Amino acid sequence: MARINENYRRLPAGYLFPEIGRRVAAFAEAHPEARIIRLGIGDVTLPLAPALVEALRAAADEMGTAAGFRGYGPERGAWPFLLDAIREHDYAARGVEIAREEIFVSDGSKQDSGNFQEIFATGCRVAVTDPVYPVYVDTNVMAGREILYLPATEANGFTPEPPAERADLVYLCSPNNPTGAVASRENLARWVVWARAHDAVLIFDAAYDAFIGDPALPRSIFEIEGARTCAVEMRSFSKRAGFTGLRCAYTVVPRQVCGATAAGERVPLNDLWARRHATKFNGVPYPVQRAAEAVFSPEGRKQTAEQVAYYMENARVLREGLQSAGFRVFGGVHAPYIWMGTPSGMGSWECFDRLLAEAHVVGTPGAGFGPAGEGYLRISAFNSRENVGEALGRIRRAFAAS
Amino acid sequence: MARINENYRRLPAGYLFPEIGRRVAAFAEAHPEARIIRLGIGDVTLPLAPALVEALRAAADEMGTAAGFRGYGPERGAWPFLLDAIREHDYAARGVEIAREEIFVSDGSKQDSGNFQEIFATGCRVAVTDPVYPVYVDTNVMAGREILYLPATEANGFTPEPPAERADLVYLCSPNNPTGAVASRENLARWVVWARAHDAVLIFDAAYDAFIGDPALPRSIFEIEGARTCAVEMRSFSKRAGFTGLRCAYTVVPRQVCGATAAGERVPLNDLWARRHATKFNGVPYPVQRAAEAVFSPEGRKQTAEQVAYYMENARVLREGLQSAGFRVFGGVHAPYIWMGTPSGMGSWECFDRLLAEAHVVGTPGAGFGPAGEGYLRISAFNSRENVGEALGRIRRAFAAS
Repeated sequence: MARINENYRRLPAGYLFPEIGRRVAAFAEAHPEARIIRLGIGDVTLPLAPALVEALRAAADEMGTAAGFRGYGPERGAWPFLLDAIREHDYAARGVEIAREEIFVSDGSKQDSGNFQEIFATGCRVAVTDPVYPVYVDTNVMAGREILYLPATEANGFTPEPPAERADLVYLCSPNNPTGAVASRENLARWVVWARAHDAVLIFDAAYDAFIGDPALPRSIFEIEGARTCAVEMRSFSKRAGFTGLRCAYTVVPRQVCGATAAGERVPLNDLWARRHATKFNGVPYPVQRAAEAVFSPEGRKQTAEQVAYYMENARVLREGLQSAGFRVFGGVHAPYIWMGTPSGMGSWECFDRLLAEAHVVGTPGAGFGPAGEGYLRISAFNSRENVGEALGRIRRAFAAS
Repeated sequence: MARINENYRRLPAGYLFPEIGRRVAAFAEAHPEARIIRLGIGDVTLPLAPALVEALRAAADEMGTAAGFRGYGPERGAWPFLLDAIREHDYAARGVEIAREEIFVSDGSKQDSGNFQEIFATGCRVAVTDPVYPVYVDTNVMAGREILYLPATEANGFTPEPPAERADLVYLCSPNNPTGAVASRENLARWVVWARAHDAVLIFDAAYDAFIGDPALPRSIFEIEGARTCAVEMRSFSKRAGFTGLRCAYTVVPRQVCGATAAGERVPLNDLWARRHATKFNGVPYPVQRAAEAVFSPEGRKQTAEQVAYYMENARVLREGLQSAGFRVFGGVHAPYIWMGTPSGMGSWECFDRLLAEAHVVGTPGAGFGPAGEGYLRISAFNSRENVGEALGRIRRAFAAS
């Protein structure tokens, strides 16, 4: 008899975003006249930058020629042109040396952050900051692990400190999804010291690093001394360059980071992840790798920086507009997300439903991201300036009477 | 302390194809003058068909416009235009009804066949036919499962019958990689009867279905009565349409197929796989989905059928040429792989090394696919006609003296 993985029964009934999708679809069907503005799921809206479109077209043409056709990529799935562009622009430019074989290109940070736990024992204790991107939790629950929640609150600036309890794997996300908070250099340094002291591994999700406005803030965990021995890092092209429909990301696993066997033997995570990658993945499409390379060209950098600036101006408009209307508002300075306190103690699903019903605006209920998200709503800055302005006005009107 | 998943220590030292890659690279470095012909890894060589290139270019242009830009795909990652093309051409055309929500589009059959085991309990007993595509075994070993090998031999025509021992999950691959054997309707019917009787699940890998030459042979497990209650099926665009560098495949999970909890409750695998897919995957790139759709257009069907015919003519040349030179040769009629008995009891790695050293031809040692592969070599038909002819001559000369 084929027995199922019963850990799936321990998951909440649905993945958060499909649940939101269902509620929005039901509302839209009941109110076909409503012009719904979606600031819920964090999906980009601007068209792909011209330099990237051109790279896709050129790669398509290459694939149609005998000389230019590419089948399976190299063993780890990435072509050297992309690995070297990443090394130069994302790391060397900020003083960090990363080797080609430390970079694993993938089809998304969701995949990487979801799959990375596979190389660890089921008995590992996982800590996440709460509220949390649901994938970290759900993938570990599917694997049968217990989760330690570290509350991110207004009191700690939404950047929790290392715990007193035992934890073996810790997911950190900065700039944070959903709170929009960014970790300081000092906070990250304390995490690195703690991880080294406890032989824990930090899984650092920097999918939103391009939105950091202050050049003094760390954009990579590897800017922190000692991190190469205890941390891995994930980055994505999704939000920085509009790749949510193209799919490209990468994970950096330094040679020095190790896990241990029960007998105490130390094993480089790079070897384990390389084996996992070679066995369960076949690389990102060649045209998509060429588009990712184009993100680093002079035109690509200029065009994608303009897109990031556009979204961050949206974030400013939302943040200041909600603030001046009397809402408690966080984030939105170094991240494309506003973390808004719900008015007068309203539950976050109640606030979500009311926003949808009265303002025809879709947010994301904070409680969907974990217990400490109750009482908040995530508002995304990924939309047109016009829609953001319109949504702001509607939110202010809908809650004026509350 | 971050403990590793020690099941990884039970894996063979390296994934088969990287090991071959290392040996070939070492030989090439030592013999820079040798013109090596690669009939090892099963990678396509013809350029992408014009209809597919055109679809990629058109999608790239769309992505560059405000109206045509696409971010995240629908919840299950696939756009309806592709789901409907699959339903119509791969199933309805052969009398099989499949619903949209039974199709999960992914970035490869390697990924799907590797990931599908996640929704089952660790205690499930897995059976594979031996020799076997290594991914089925390695991914289950990583998850801590024991493997039952069912020998595929000359005596059973390389299509084993259901076992007397208990098995809960069975991987079947037809046309087979590596043996090139194709399962008869009667053999598959016996598997379906057996699976229903034992409440087992058949994981049917039809990645090479396009190479079946005889229209009377089943191309889908769902052409077999009763399969909808006990089987899932994987198909790929990789070999049929040159997508190894583009990445697109799909898995069909009928609503009726169930696993069971320890308490005996029956749970549809479609629900579990949908949850896994939504949590750990984000869809195939939009331009790649448009290229996959173009495989089903009149031009796409004609052009990709010509490519399949080209490779199958290579297979005929190899098969007949090796046969007339006195080799024992199997497969290559409904599959792009020749399964060749090594001469005079030579071990398959020895034969691999000798072929490389003396003929500068890369095959794949049968032993790399499992114990029953010892004494065989897999020869791929994916290459140019010229290289195939040249390789054939060299193989004949290299082994003439043995």
